[in-house]
Amino acid sequence: MAPGEHPLEFVFRPRSIAVAGASPQRGGSGNEYVRQLQHCGFAGPIYPVHPAATAVEGLPAYRSVLDAPGPVDYVISAVPAAALPQLVDECGRKGVRVLHAFTGRFRETGSSEAAALEQEVLRRVRSAGLRLIGPNCMGLYVPQQGIGFKYNFPQDPGPIAFLSQSGGNCAELVYRGSLRGLRFSKVISYGNGLDLTESDFLEYLAADPETTVVGAYTEGVRDGRRFLAAVKGLAASKPVVLLKGGRTGAGARSVASHTGSLAGATAVWDAACRQAGAVQVADLEEMIDVLVAFRFLKPVRGLAVGVVGGGGGRTVQSADDCEAAGLTVVPLPSEVRERLRPLAPAFADWIGNPLDVSILAGANVLPEMIRLMGAHPAFHALIANVGEDWSLDTPESAGRMLTGTLKSFLELGPLQPKPFAVVLGTSEGPEEWRWRAIEEAKRRFWEAGLPVFPTIARAARALVNAHAYYRWRESVS
Amino acid sequence: MAPGEHPLEFVFRPRSIAVAGASPQRGGSGNEYVRQLQHCGFAGPIYPVHPAATAVEGLPAYRSVLDAPGPVDYVISAVPAAALPQLVDECGRKGVRVLHAFTGRFRETGSSEAAALEQEVLRRVRSAGLRLIGPNCMGLYVPQQGIGFKYNFPQDPGPIAFLSQSGGNCAELVYRGSLRGLRFSKVISYGNGLDLTESDFLEYLAADPETTVVGAYTEGVRDGRRFLAAVKGLAASKPVVLLKGGRTGAGARSVASHTGSLAGATAVWDAACRQAGAVQVADLEEMIDVLVAFRFLKPVRGLAVGVVGGGGGRTVQSADDCEAAGLTVVPLPSEVRERLRPLAPAFADWIGNPLDVSILAGANVLPEMIRLMGAHPAFHALIANVGEDWSLDTPESAGRMLTGTLKSFLELGPLQPKPFAVVLGTSEGPEEWRWRAIEEAKRRFWEAGLPVFPTIARAARALVNAHAYYRWRESVS
Repeated sequence: MAPGEHPLEFVFRPRSIAVAGASPQRGGSGNEYVRQLQHCGFAGPIYPVHPAATAVEGLPAYRSVLDAPGPVDYVISAVPAAALPQLVDECGRKGVRVLHAFTGRFRETGSSEAAALEQEVLRRVRSAGLRLIGPNCMGLYVPQQGIGFKYNFPQDPGPIAFLSQSGGNCAELVYRGSLRGLRFSKVISYGNGLDLTESDFLEYLAADPETTVVGAYTEGVRDGRRFLAAVKGLAASKPVVLLKGGRTGAGARSVASHTGSLAGATAVWDAACRQAGAVQVADLEEMIDVLVAFRFLKPVRGLAVGVVGGGGGRTVQSADDCEAAGLTVVPLPSEVRERLRPLAPAFADWIGNPLDVSILAGANVLPEMIRLMGAHPAFHALIANVGEDWSLDTPESAGRMLTGTLKSFLELGPLQPKPFAVVLGTSEGPEEWRWRAIEEAKRRFWEAGLPVFPTIARAARALVNAHAYYRWRESVS
Repeated sequence: MAPGEHPLEFVFRPRSIAVAGASPQRGGSGNEYVRQLQHCGFAGPIYPVHPAATAVEGLPAYRSVLDAPGPVDYVISAVPAAALPQLVDECGRKGVRVLHAFTGRFRETGSSEAAALEQEVLRRVRSAGLRLIGPNCMGLYVPQQGIGFKYNFPQDPGPIAFLSQSGGNCAELVYRGSLRGLRFSKVISYGNGLDLTESDFLEYLAADPETTVVGAYTEGVRDGRRFLAAVKGLAASKPVVLLKGGRTGAGARSVASHTGSLAGATAVWDAACRQAGAVQVADLEEMIDVLVAFRFLKPVRGLAVGVVGGGGGRTVQSADDCEAAGLTVVPLPSEVRERLRPLAPAFADWIGNPLDVSILAGANVLPEMIRLMGAHPAFHALIANVGEDWSLDTPESAGRMLTGTLKSFLELGPLQPKPFAVVLGTSEGPEEWRWRAIEEAKRRFWEAGLPVFPTIARAARALVNAHAYYRWRESVS
């Protein structure tokens, strides 16, 4: 261990990886892990392990982990559950440091034999002196190290960490988040959490210099006291966003058959997590929104918001959605109104906050409004509404997409001394030009360091969530 | 008026249309209305009216509505506010039956002169014996008649009506709704509602044989008692979905500067509308969800739901989202489990409701599960989860998109004797193959008569909303 390094650093920096249960046939999980490591550009040796094959995906294959010609730091297990205990022993003898067990069918099946087998695995892991990720999980996505498990994960790293008892949730969060500019340091799918638990990972991430924001999906925690201490320790320096699976009766049943977890009492959990400084969200969409807010928004120091862009009913909805979420859409300060009067004498007494741009009839007041709201202390944050459903209805209109309103947001947003959130709807629809125009706009926003939200309501909730965190942090500092 | 016809039928069936204030220059609102009528294929004469032009968009132009060479049923006004009273008089002399005033800048500006001018317009409308849509609105989208105001509105008609004080909300609702299979009978943007009000339109739509479901966005109503009676009368035979703008303090301010409406007290409104049988929604996204539910779902007779498809964390989230929305995710009935046992002996005691397909490891139980849940009285409705974020991560995977899970939903969904809702995420993302695969899947679903929702939570809320309506209707029948 290098000086100052966290004791679990080795988990995320293997120098070599063996994949046990890697068949030459495509489609199998072991084969797929080999291909994923190749796709991600893992720099060290990859050792496929298979009882009969001599080669897998162009790499020499070995009968056993023990036969690998060099040291093996990390093993991915795709062997059947019954074969896992022996693999653990072999890993111990080989000096393997981390075993990731994709292998499932343990206590989550509800069978007592499978639960006993899981305990046997744990005993052997302990006596072999290695650490276990899983079982019943997808394992690591660490782009910096060339480790991953889906082809559509970005290859470039970033400062977001996500840990999750569900690999599917990792896949949704990484892909959907990447479309809004999220990039990742460590994503950890840890399934049943038999040895390494959420608390281990949270403690590690608190110390990880590559991580500035942490999200976590948990279905049940092994040690509530340690978990809350870990959350609190982490939240003191980095935002932590929690999504709890199994909040309802049916959810708790699903949790049992997914990772064999005990879901616990929701109300107690909520109160304890709030006290520990975690932001809690209701679903993965909100998780992404809040991670985007922490990644791209300046700290949210208050709830008074200025809203610009869009018009008519969308302006009204902006106001309602912001206030329903807990923001305050303050009336336009008279100083701002008077500064706008020379630019738009006919509208100066009509416009307000939210600014309805349809009122302006082409008067170019928007950039000045952004500057004035950005500078005025009455506003803690700004929301900028693209309103693309009105402006995009022909291929020609797509050509104008990046001018006007959108250009003002792109140029002025990053310069404002307060949080600046952009609302731009999804690119869905059958017209290719429309899809391209919106994808292009979205990419430009996050490349400019601006967070993009698909609806006003979601932007507003993300601001409120971020504010709660910063307020908590002030209260404990 | 034909026998049995509603007295306002003529509003939606003009035989000829004049556009006042139609300049030959593109970009102006009058010119744009002429082009929209041409684009929509309006079959009758279109008369551009302009003080100087001789032709507009290839059509002869006239100095005044009075100069049009044939009878004029309907006039679209794009003249300035000050010129509207004279236009009204000329319409009266010409025998025009309906004037749609796109013209704005009346009481919504907050100026007392403008409010007085609006009242003057109303006096002249009454004395001229015509009806007014607006002012300050986009007017009609009636695809059956070749009338519309956005290029991306579908040209084919359907059974949904939408009335709205905001033209922008019409644009969002029609476009976004069309992507999920909604098609429209009459969409009415009516702005300030000076003459024809929400109550007139609701009463008309109750009798309209082309309309089976009605949505409405209102910012304030002219006559509360008449409005509630109209809602109740309509709801007795057709679902009515209401979105109220100006529910909050800031929203009410925005409403005043948008359509000069008085927002009123939210709590009183909510209770009265609920009693009248309306389904109330919080935003346009939910409005679309509920319209899609009423358009494509069989009547929802209870809250017990079966969920199939997706796996792992998404299964847990399905359960939590459904129960949080008010549905009950009932445990899998033992008869269903026993029927599945021969097909999947290893999993029969493990699987449940929601059905986690990742447990099945390829065992083809899904079609039988859909049939069994569809037939079993324990379930009032089914939700089918595509889970595309897991299955779509390479171009090759897109080729498999329409087989497997999705094929089961497409084939079996329409055959089930109970409501069947599909969850499929948005197509957003920079990969063209992914965008195409999801757009294609979505289109196939709605063409098969299946409603598509972007998230489980939104599907669940739509089911609960639809159920509330059907329960209300039973209670009053």
